Amino acid sequence: MGHFSIAHLPRHWYVACKSEELRDQPLARTMLDVPLVLFRDAGGEPRALIDRCAHRNVPLSKGAVMAGKLVCGYHGWCYDGEGQVIGVPALVGDPTGKARRVSRYATKEKQGYVWVWLDPDKEPDKEPYTVPGIGLPGYDTIRYESDIPATLHAAAENVLDVPHTAFLHKGLFRGTGTPNKITAKILRTGVMAQAEYVGEPRPSGWIGRFLAPGGGTVEHFDRFVLPSIAEVEYRLGADNHLVVTSLLTPISDFVTRLFAAASFKLRVPHAIVNAALKPLAQRVLTQDIEILGAQTESVKRFEGEQFVSTDVDILGPHIWRLLKQAERGEEPDERYEAEVELMA
Amino acid sequence: MGHFSIAHLPRHWYVACKSEELRDQPLARTMLDVPLVLFRDAGGEPRALIDRCAHRNVPLSKGAVMAGKLVCGYHGWCYDGEGQVIGVPALVGDPTGKARRVSRYATKEKQGYVWVWLDPDKEPDKEPYTVPGIGLPGYDTIRYESDIPATLHAAAENVLDVPHTAFLHKGLFRGTGTPNKITAKILRTGVMAQAEYVGEPRPSGWIGRFLAPGGGTVEHFDRFVLPSIAEVEYRLGADNHLVVTSLLTPISDFVTRLFAAASFKLRVPHAIVNAALKPLAQRVLTQDIEILGAQTESVKRFEGEQFVSTDVDILGPHIWRLLKQAERGEEPDERYEAEVELMA
Amino acid sequence: MGHFSIAHLPRHWYVACKSEELRDQPLARTMLDVPLVLFRDAGGEPRALIDRCAHRNVPLSKGAVMAGKLVCGYHGWCYDGEGQVIGVPALVGDPTGKARRVSRYATKEKQGYVWVWLDPDKEPDKEPYTVPGIGLPGYDTIRYESDIPATLHAAAENVLDVPHTAFLHKGLFRGTGTPNKITAKILRTGVMAQAEYVGEPRPSGWIGRFLAPGGGTVEHFDRFVLPSIAEVEYRLGADNHLVVTSLLTPISDFVTRLFAAASFKLRVPHAIVNAALKPLAQRVLTQDIEILGAQTESVKRFEGEQFVSTDVDILGPHIWRLLKQAERGEEPDERYEAEVELMA
Repeated sequence: MGHFSIAHLPRHWYVACKSEELRDQPLARTMLDVPLVLFRDAGGEPRALIDRCAHRNVPLSKGAVMAGKLVCGYHGWCYDGEGQVIGVPALVGDPTGKARRVSRYATKEKQGYVWVWLDPDKEPDKEPYTVPGIGLPGYDTIRYESDIPATLHAAAENVLDVPHTAFLHKGLFRGTGTPNKITAKILRTGVMAQAEYVGEPRPSGWIGRFLAPGGGTVEHFDRFVLPSIAEVEYRLGADNHLVVTSLLTPISDFVTRLFAAASFKLRVPHAIVNAALKPLAQRVLTQDIEILGAQTESVKRFEGEQFVSTDVDILGPHIWRLLKQAERGEEPDERYEAEVELMA
Repeated sequence: MGHFSIAHLPRHWYVACKSEELRDQPLARTMLDVPLVLFRDAGGEPRALIDRCAHRNVPLSKGAVMAGKLVCGYHGWCYDGEGQVIGVPALVGDPTGKARRVSRYATKEKQGYVWVWLDPDKEPDKEPYTVPGIGLPGYDTIRYESDIPATLHAAAENVLDVPHTAFLHKGLFRGTGTPNKITAKILRTGVMAQAEYVGEPRPSGWIGRFLAPGGGTVEHFDRFVLPSIAEVEYRLGADNHLVVTSLLTPISDFVTRLFAAASFKLRVPHAIVNAALKPLAQRVLTQDIEILGAQTESVKRFEGEQFVSTDVDILGPHIWRLLKQAERGEEPDERYEAEVELMA
Repeated sequence: MGHFSIAHLPRHWYVACKSEELRDQPLARTMLDVPLVLFRDAGGEPRALIDRCAHRNVPLSKGAVMAGKLVCGYHGWCYDGEGQVIGVPALVGDPTGKARRVSRYATKEKQGYVWVWLDPDKEPDKEPYTVPGIGLPGYDTIRYESDIPATLHAAAENVLDVPHTAFLHKGLFRGTGTPNKITAKILRTGVMAQAEYVGEPRPSGWIGRFLAPGGGTVEHFDRFVLPSIAEVEYRLGADNHLVVTSLLTPISDFVTRLFAAASFKLRVPHAIVNAALKPLAQRVLTQDIEILGAQTESVKRFEGEQFVSTDVDILGPHIWRLLKQAERGEEPDERYEAEVELMA
């Protein structure tokens, strides 16, 4: 087996589902290859346990939520939100006991997402990421989700990659006009990597038209924040602001779930943007999913990645460096800055 | 890989098929992960060979039975019931020869089942199990079969487990009345493990109604007999007797075939029982198959079982002890007796 | 894992596709388990590269041919027929460079087939096989193709095996009359193995009728030529000649692609032969595919081959000897001759 760009970072928050997906029945979600079951306790708080009954290992997600407790569908073992067994129907005597419990994972509900801290039976040492734009005055937010058949690294690189847009998404996003030489100012700290594109004219295609109907030079940032947030931000003056945050959750080594929130404050009437942005994003996403799926099949078939990068792979190598250093628990590098020219 | 409750006991009889399934053509059956072909010889006796032609390894079950001999479909090599090649069409000279044979397995047809002794080229040192009730005066028998997506151990434990019935089969079999505290008297010998339930009122649900329309305290035995027989027996006085024998055949590590025979002598008109028992058993079986399939997927996904048992897992741990000791060829334990209280 | 009759001989020509299959778009073909992409350059010449973009490993076959160059569908990297990158759209500066290339495979278009030399980045030291009959005056050729679910060895043995025809293809090809004792004269050199059948009456079945409507003794040769050509030739006097050449391409260990060319010069009107031969060949092939697929499943299931051969497995063992010696790079045996009697 060759090299795959896969890093496991359990001591972090990841989105398990949207708030509205978690209702009165248990919800199965695999994260970092671990099967979890989510449910709401009697107070409505989300809870996450490993999805395996301590007794005969049936998935607890096949059971039911009764009065805020999770009940296994086989013999009726009953769990509280901490993963402790509090009922065994056929048993005479005390049902609790040290062995009769399952791992639980810390959860946090925030901005319409349910986040899970993937280190079992541990307390988080930070807060989940705050997605910019959601709920701010003058902003609207569109959300969409999808499974991406790719490693977290390949998915994050793709979301933040400028060069493929002109080619893969030709017409939808860039690619129709004459390319311009622009400069990317790269900044990498211990927890994030960012590219600021300087001197970039309004991107061609539909999304550029919403952003800057009158043309002009836009401010454009692409940024990755550990462990799995990929954010694209465009700004034109004070009145036009679009930020698309992709919260990436590693389901397994080669499947990554994308929870995207596109928030915008634009001069173009929001009703038009609301109607047009989601189908546009969906088409872009469908093209990315197809090509990333082909990439994944290919690296599996060849039993390893053989990537050759150039200067214009602006953020991919930095994302990998951040992931790998974090996985190894290494002291991150000092602040890094660089400039790269590219045609976009 | 962690622990799985899997034991291989080839020196035993297992049911391959019902008599009526084995007719004039070869029948493929996998048992203990070994592909076998069954056919009837010129005298109508069942024969079992390994399902692989000695020549080019094509499954003999793809061939045909001609005059009580089994003929491979590729080059026409012809086998007798002992697995000896007795014909090679293109060959000039004697077709027999020591290398030109395949393993054969002893067979026995009894009570409408074809049993196979899974130790190849060996003679059995005992008879197949005699299923109680079949053919006895005043008894009727209903048979049903199914593949169960579980280890032999998990399937046998499930068949003989009381606590899950009130929960998984609620309404069909127990679970509707108030639970009673009853006593299970456990007996384990070198070849079997049995639980006798003392002081058990008629079980709630439909099956209890057939057994004891007027209520009353029933005699109830659950027993496991090596290598793979799981039997549930209910008796109420001299006139009401129901015994369900599950003959379990390990197909592969995680698939077990169930051949069930439910024999009964009841005061309730047998026509009613005949009409109702099979659909009831089928519904119970469907629920068990679904939960056992979920259990199997889960232990595979977690790469091992992590079972926590309690006292009310009455027979499961004893079944495993019997299987494991038999697999290791150990001297079995001395007679073991114990009592357990449970809510049922 | 036991033994499988699998040999890898990359330093040889194999057919990738028929000429007519390779048009103006890239064509994906797996050969010897290696994913390749074929395309035609600006001169119309076939080109073959490894099917993996050097950049992010997306299959190049998902891209497009533009002006005789192959362009990846993800970021638009552009390759010439030698596998060299000659364009990277977003890059400022020279796109070429030693690391920016992929392996290329020599190709040759001949007699309507595109051949590929499976040793990457190497020049062939011989020409592809010349298929007899194609384009000769007085000859017609019928072509057909199929994937065979078997090793190259099992497929070649099957194509050249006489005994199975009377059994598996009974009625279509042999098997209807009384078998005759005939003699096979075997010849094996360093690169081929051949059986000449002496004293063979016209084969029974349809194909024999075309060949020799008036009966008579035919000349019949079966031959295997390294690495993967299986040829069956019948001749009756100067006027009746039928030669079926099977060009076998190993796709993967257990899948072999067959490109067959049946050329004939016969007294029977060619219009009749043209109409009848292809459906006949297709039925024979369907039967072979089914039995070879069963053989393959069986050897996989038993984790190895356990073949027992007899004298009448005329060419199979010689084919394996040739393949194995060639794979090991051994000096081939001296010329070998033998005679075998068989019933056919």
